[in-house]
Amino acid sequence: MKKAFLILFLSLSILGQAQSADAEQIDKLFKTALTEGKAYDWLNHLSNQIGGRLSGSVQAQQAVEYTKAQLDSLGLDRVWLQPVMVPKWVRGTPEFAYFETSPGLSTNVPVCALGGSVATPIGGLKAGLVEVTGLEDLKKMDPDKIKGKIVFFNRPMDPTLISTFDAYSGCVDQRYAGAAEAAKLGAVGVVVRSMNLRLDDYPHTGSMSYEDLPVSDRIPAAAISTNGAEILSTTLKLNPETKFYLRQNCKQFEDVESFNVIGEIKGSEFPNEVMVVGGHLDSWDLGDGSHDDGAGCVQSMDVLRLLKKTGYRPKRTIRVVLFMNEENGLRGGNKYAEVAQSKNERHIFALESDAGGFTPRGFSFDCSEANLERVQEWKKLFEPYLIHLFEKGYSGADIGPLKNNEMVLAGLRPDSQRYFDHHHAENDTFEHVNKRELELGAASMASLVYLFDKYGIIPGTKIKG
Amino acid sequence: MKKAFLILFLSLSILGQAQSADAEQIDKLFKTALTEGKAYDWLNHLSNQIGGRLSGSVQAQQAVEYTKAQLDSLGLDRVWLQPVMVPKWVRGTPEFAYFETSPGLSTNVPVCALGGSVATPIGGLKAGLVEVTGLEDLKKMDPDKIKGKIVFFNRPMDPTLISTFDAYSGCVDQRYAGAAEAAKLGAVGVVVRSMNLRLDDYPHTGSMSYEDLPVSDRIPAAAISTNGAEILSTTLKLNPETKFYLRQNCKQFEDVESFNVIGEIKGSEFPNEVMVVGGHLDSWDLGDGSHDDGAGCVQSMDVLRLLKKTGYRPKRTIRVVLFMNEENGLRGGNKYAEVAQSKNERHIFALESDAGGFTPRGFSFDCSEANLERVQEWKKLFEPYLIHLFEKGYSGADIGPLKNNEMVLAGLRPDSQRYFDHHHAENDTFEHVNKRELELGAASMASLVYLFDKYGIIPGTKIKG
Repeated sequence: MKKAFLILFLSLSILGQAQSADAEQIDKLFKTALTEGKAYDWLNHLSNQIGGRLSGSVQAQQAVEYTKAQLDSLGLDRVWLQPVMVPKWVRGTPEFAYFETSPGLSTNVPVCALGGSVATPIGGLKAGLVEVTGLEDLKKMDPDKIKGKIVFFNRPMDPTLISTFDAYSGCVDQRYAGAAEAAKLGAVGVVVRSMNLRLDDYPHTGSMSYEDLPVSDRIPAAAISTNGAEILSTTLKLNPETKFYLRQNCKQFEDVESFNVIGEIKGSEFPNEVMVVGGHLDSWDLGDGSHDDGAGCVQSMDVLRLLKKTGYRPKRTIRVVLFMNEENGLRGGNKYAEVAQSKNERHIFALESDAGGFTPRGFSFDCSEANLERVQEWKKLFEPYLIHLFEKGYSGADIGPLKNNEMVLAGLRPDSQRYFDHHHAENDTFEHVNKRELELGAASMASLVYLFDKYGIIPGTKIKG
Repeated sequence: MKKAFLILFLSLSILGQAQSADAEQIDKLFKTALTEGKAYDWLNHLSNQIGGRLSGSVQAQQAVEYTKAQLDSLGLDRVWLQPVMVPKWVRGTPEFAYFETSPGLSTNVPVCALGGSVATPIGGLKAGLVEVTGLEDLKKMDPDKIKGKIVFFNRPMDPTLISTFDAYSGCVDQRYAGAAEAAKLGAVGVVVRSMNLRLDDYPHTGSMSYEDLPVSDRIPAAAISTNGAEILSTTLKLNPETKFYLRQNCKQFEDVESFNVIGEIKGSEFPNEVMVVGGHLDSWDLGDGSHDDGAGCVQSMDVLRLLKKTGYRPKRTIRVVLFMNEENGLRGGNKYAEVAQSKNERHIFALESDAGGFTPRGFSFDCSEANLERVQEWKKLFEPYLIHLFEKGYSGADIGPLKNNEMVLAGLRPDSQRYFDHHHAENDTFEHVNKRELELGAASMASLVYLFDKYGIIPGTKIKG
């Protein structure tokens, strides 16, 4: 009995020491991030010196070169560019739209083309309107009433959901598939209420798809600001004959070459176990992409720097990956996974930050129950930093293609309340990122990477869900 | 044994039902706040139609009248004004300051008078500078070096503390007592680094005190922006002979009458048990006081409205109190407590929101262990709303004077990262408040008030700490 107690005592004592060493390392990571973090400076350059970084644009290429040079300066073991062909869609001159209640009586409304949309005829497009609350509603309509009309998708995001990402998920289908569905019914264009919980004057772009619709059947698709959607809806109720005018001259070009930017610290004990931390380097073109996803890129870069700066030597190979083309193609994420598979690299962990540079609240995990339970045991280590969420859930678009049966995929979960005020809009800009919030995110990510590097994953357990 | 199980089963089942009824009511409160909340509209008026509400100002009086009228419209059982004499300090014309490295070579820096400061001579004040890191540092200095100089207090807030309020507490003594201490050593003025974690160009005002210093010995005190403090400090290192010029013409007037604004729902079962929810209606004069503490006022007002709107009939008497003069006197808080005591009112609970209208993270409690344990049992009810903090700690300045041996004092704890970017500065304005974040705070407060109303407090336990 005495021996058993002794063993128990020793085990608890070792466990206690491990926890306290972890607490110490995590404390160092947070203190370093908050006093000597680089994320904010990097973001300042990406946002204010380069700007919006749509795939295939000059700015996207500048961002590749800038982040590569910055990673080069960190003294990592290896930094490289991974070529990937990306779509190139160009907005062209600013869009223009108004609604007209009677000839000559018109009101301008803020709109922007959805990413991937075709242009209107050069002189614009004018037609009557049909308002629907979504795809289901559209399918219930008499097709005769759709023919020749512009379909106005006006389902607002649900304000009662606490996670604004849930509200987005419940709404974004009309933006993504609205044009294809409306075109099948003979519509000549679509206007979609911006994915924004706030009433304001910014139209929010975002990806859409024509699916397998022949090119000749494709119709222009634009987003309208939430205030614009409100006034348009009210006007339509008063006057169902209201016409809508839209002009946009966006264009899809041939694919062009771009790059994922990758930096790596080689593992000292298990170099063949690869851990990825990343965000996406491309952004939409209206703002400067500070929250989506400049923040995730600079945080990921700082994770490797913070680990080095605090004197931590990883056991496993840790890679920062700045993925290209998340917004309108996911080519970078797919390419990275494809190359990893072709090289037979064993990825055990991937963490993405692509939900804005706001105060971190925790992480969601796509992994086995065993690994999730392990993570829950680490909760206490994060509590001093007011990080409480460790839940099963979505990780990130770019790391999704890496998914295998054993690995742990994770997503940073920042406070989501303000995200969709800025998402894909002109006001996704640097001044809306708070330095401390960004740094706390980087430190949280570095802490999670540290723990998974130190303890590894629990292998061999199948992913559920 | 069987009977014991049956009792256990029934108890658990009753407990379960109670929890689920509570969960339902709290869900209603959040949904109502997020879809039909009034807090944001009220704040819009307070901030944009009235503006900064310094005690004794026309705007403070307008705010009293506006909020009283709004409470009148809610159909409460009673709404009234509680008179209180408040100090009246007026900033006067904008302050002006520069430093001069050699005659004729000067650089302007953004400053503002600290609240309660005396003016400079009419033509301004010019003197050499002594930089110190705080009161301790000052006391160690040779008094001969202080005499005739302007003391520059330049201790920054500690960025490594996760709660920015801790960083503020660790720093604010130099602002509050710096002038009195420096004057005792013969200084002619003080300039204090703004209480702001960010580097920017806004000077942040705030209260200061001359303690019992004779009027003739009082010296002007101003805050300098953090960028200003950085450049001044660098310049002083290069040129210790640098002179500082300051001009301000602020003035303290006689006390004037003002009011706490109070609204009440009479308790249906225990009308003599009073519960208070509040914020302070006065603000500093530089911005419009949206976060400090317009947010707390409109949230508190909405607590009573949300309870009514969701059909909840309080058992206990619930009062919203909008306290006057928290910023530079606490007269409203003291008056409310004094009147409560003189009327022998039994206050069992008070909740203050005075930490900004940001995403709520939880509450801190100043109460007995027994009540704190009870609150911890309610944590689960708040988790769906991402509210996790239920800790022992500070409640609020205005409700502090109410403290007695049995009651529960609580403070809303919003995310604190951005608070001191705006606190007491020109940029504490409406556009920096997010509607949803504000509403989530109001709903959290209403939920806590609901629980304490329904279950009461555990009486007779002495407050510790």
